[in-house]
Amino acid sequence: MTKSPMLIALCILLLSSCQVQENDRFPNIVVIFTDDLGYGDIGVFGHPTIATPHLDRMASEGLKFTQFYSGASVCTPSRAALLTGRLPIRSGMASSQTRVLFPFSTSGLPASEITIAEMVKERGYATGIFGKWHLGHLPQFLPTAHGFDEYFGVPYSNDMRPTPESRWVAAQNYPPLPLLENDSLIEESPDQRLLTKRYTEKAIDFMTRHSEKPFFLYVPHTFPHIPLYASSDFEGKSARGLYGDVVEELDWSVGEILQAIRDLKLEEETLVIFTSDNGPWLVMNEEGGSAGLLREGKGSTWEGGMREPTIAWWPGTIAAGKVTQSLATMMDILPTAAELCEWQIPEDRTFDGVSLLPIFNDTQAEVREVVFYYLGAELFAVRKGPWKLHFKTLTPYVGQQAESHDPPLLYHLLHDPSELQNIAEDHPDMVQNLRTVAQEHLNSFVPPPSELEKIDTALYNGSKSYPAFY
Amino acid sequence: MTKSPMLIALCILLLSSCQVQENDRFPNIVVIFTDDLGYGDIGVFGHPTIATPHLDRMASEGLKFTQFYSGASVCTPSRAALLTGRLPIRSGMASSQTRVLFPFSTSGLPASEITIAEMVKERGYATGIFGKWHLGHLPQFLPTAHGFDEYFGVPYSNDMRPTPESRWVAAQNYPPLPLLENDSLIEESPDQRLLTKRYTEKAIDFMTRHSEKPFFLYVPHTFPHIPLYASSDFEGKSARGLYGDVVEELDWSVGEILQAIRDLKLEEETLVIFTSDNGPWLVMNEEGGSAGLLREGKGSTWEGGMREPTIAWWPGTIAAGKVTQSLATMMDILPTAAELCEWQIPEDRTFDGVSLLPIFNDTQAEVREVVFYYLGAELFAVRKGPWKLHFKTLTPYVGQQAESHDPPLLYHLLHDPSELQNIAEDHPDMVQNLRTVAQEHLNSFVPPPSELEKIDTALYNGSKSYPAFY
Repeated sequence: MTKSPMLIALCILLLSSCQVQENDRFPNIVVIFTDDLGYGDIGVFGHPTIATPHLDRMASEGLKFTQFYSGASVCTPSRAALLTGRLPIRSGMASSQTRVLFPFSTSGLPASEITIAEMVKERGYATGIFGKWHLGHLPQFLPTAHGFDEYFGVPYSNDMRPTPESRWVAAQNYPPLPLLENDSLIEESPDQRLLTKRYTEKAIDFMTRHSEKPFFLYVPHTFPHIPLYASSDFEGKSARGLYGDVVEELDWSVGEILQAIRDLKLEEETLVIFTSDNGPWLVMNEEGGSAGLLREGKGSTWEGGMREPTIAWWPGTIAAGKVTQSLATMMDILPTAAELCEWQIPEDRTFDGVSLLPIFNDTQAEVREVVFYYLGAELFAVRKGPWKLHFKTLTPYVGQQAESHDPPLLYHLLHDPSELQNIAEDHPDMVQNLRTVAQEHLNSFVPPPSELEKIDTALYNGSKSYPAFY
Repeated sequence: MTKSPMLIALCILLLSSCQVQENDRFPNIVVIFTDDLGYGDIGVFGHPTIATPHLDRMASEGLKFTQFYSGASVCTPSRAALLTGRLPIRSGMASSQTRVLFPFSTSGLPASEITIAEMVKERGYATGIFGKWHLGHLPQFLPTAHGFDEYFGVPYSNDMRPTPESRWVAAQNYPPLPLLENDSLIEESPDQRLLTKRYTEKAIDFMTRHSEKPFFLYVPHTFPHIPLYASSDFEGKSARGLYGDVVEELDWSVGEILQAIRDLKLEEETLVIFTSDNGPWLVMNEEGGSAGLLREGKGSTWEGGMREPTIAWWPGTIAAGKVTQSLATMMDILPTAAELCEWQIPEDRTFDGVSLLPIFNDTQAEVREVVFYYLGAELFAVRKGPWKLHFKTLTPYVGQQAESHDPPLLYHLLHDPSELQNIAEDHPDMVQNLRTVAQEHLNSFVPPPSELEKIDTALYNGSKSYPAFY
């Protein structure tokens, strides 16, 4: 058979157009991140009285993860884990004394860390963050110093604001909550009722402005961290009360972002991941969330503290309406993004993630077997496959000290997701196996000094007041 | 304009054909009922390691109820409530001494009660039950005496079988578990691994044989009541262990039944309701289920004992992918069925249900405000709107006595679904309001003698052995 020159030309044209398209357009990556949302706080994860039709739809069009973990059970280290793809203990973002960054902190995420934003920026992405940062509020630690082209949001938690009545000296004199745009203060004490809406508008505006080239959009919401605020469109609307109002507004925000992606006709080239930073703040009672059937919440290494309600959405790549029990962590997002934008992961440091693409395109059932549960700088527990071994446990925020367990507590998380039956005695081999996994991990690296412990003692003691912009 | 005789004739033809269709074909009604399945035991209600793709799909095509209640927290009275549309206390199916029927019981659901089966039979329906009855195993109490044309299944719970090692005398000498067809024993000690499959096959066969006229199909599964059994297709397959295997086989069964309805092209004329009889049997540990974020389980009047994972499915009538927080109970199914088949509800007795059609077709947000929580013959708690008042509580199956509360405990179930914050002191008016609701209810009727307390004392004492067919 002789090949027609016309046909050959057509093939070349087709091939080259594919090539061009691939190089021109890496997929967009969107991470929507809530603050203190519990595993059981959205409809498709079982909440009875918080209505989340947009997240439910996102799950029915996408992939629901039932065993997706945070890198920590509180804000700052969790965000470090997400953006660096590394355990917070490796980046100095862990401490057992000072669990998060405060207004009196003098450090933040080190410049030597590579964030997802820096990585994708090298590959031509536009990068934007609209929401809460909490990886350092001084200029050299802000998002704009970590690969983000654009920033709009608060630098730390929304309860870090003037609290003169606090019994905690350090909090008595906090400066007004700053709202930043890029590296400038634009408002003091912004109306928190409007934060979710403002982040959402900014996020959509960002996608609209950058619809012609790939973008990385990171929306780390301020809520449902306390104090709770919802806009007038949502306040008083949820059956669950104010906490529900706030979560339903976050759900609305997810719906707006997904709809904007559809309107921009980018749904087949945009991966969206929804997850949360850590478990629900249970001691806040009605103002805190629910971990569903999981034990405990924020600040704890029980499952409720670190397993997050997570949904991935990417029409055309991720099949609709799937549920995966695959183990995954937020540190897997960086390697996933690296694969998507063909970035070579450097070998000068250890990353703790693996790409989730084989889960997304259903070519592999499992991509990881082990999860480490740190509380501050200390390894409290380890999971391998179905087994979880607790060396220490803590019931957080009630003044209790951590309890050490020797022999450690062993649970089979698949059979016993609520961690009710310690079966260490029946499985001494498994206890030993997990002990070894933990020990080998701990022996494999030397943590750098903690950045979280670097504080301005005078601010902390209240002997100095905060400068105007902090 | 002159009307064309042709056009008039066509209109008459169309109208009359509609008329004929409506009269000829009331909608089919299918109730799939599990045994001891917990509120948190299926994917779309939040379970992480039990895979229920068919129930998840049923919810995504139908309506998920997040506040749907059983009529009791154990088997027999719950089934009485479902089939009669009345609180078990009205039908003699409640007792505080003998909570369910046993092989030594001598009574069952009274002939004077009207079941859904009897009702729809009057309106021309074929009626079939394939599964566990538990409303009386003597011939005069069997399904065939209560309106069912066809019966295949076990007469009571699957743990009511020879248990010579039991410390409970009454159970030492139980007869082999009977498998009945209509009113005849067809097998003793059937292979329980095959029960779910056999019920499913019979159910599909029943629908296929009766596809030309309306049918009422009731599939009260034997499982996940203990002892747990799954077929070889499911045993060892679920991440959750044997309990998960069993639930995943039930999920498969739901998928088969819905697919059969689609294959028969009956999906637009068939209402399917999936629910469970009571909460999970928590003291069974891994062999029991999970109530998710709800408190306690089977045998208790905390929410976990009586709130059921419920899905309604009726393509074309029920919109796809909706979630309702409307209060509903299984006693609402009879009035719903009555409205569907245009049956006049008799006025000689009190029914405790209301039709759910306004919820199904979304013309009304709420159809009921009050739920009564009986433990045995005693009213333990009452719910009105968001408020629940507990007069008594019990931690079941651990030998504890019921605890009386005066003042009673008050919870706001919408804000606090896990019943963690007793707020009675802050809301004395609401306590009084709910006390009045309870008192008026109790004053409004005189319960008949309990049928559950009618037992063969010699069988109970072990001084007589069971006859061949019981």
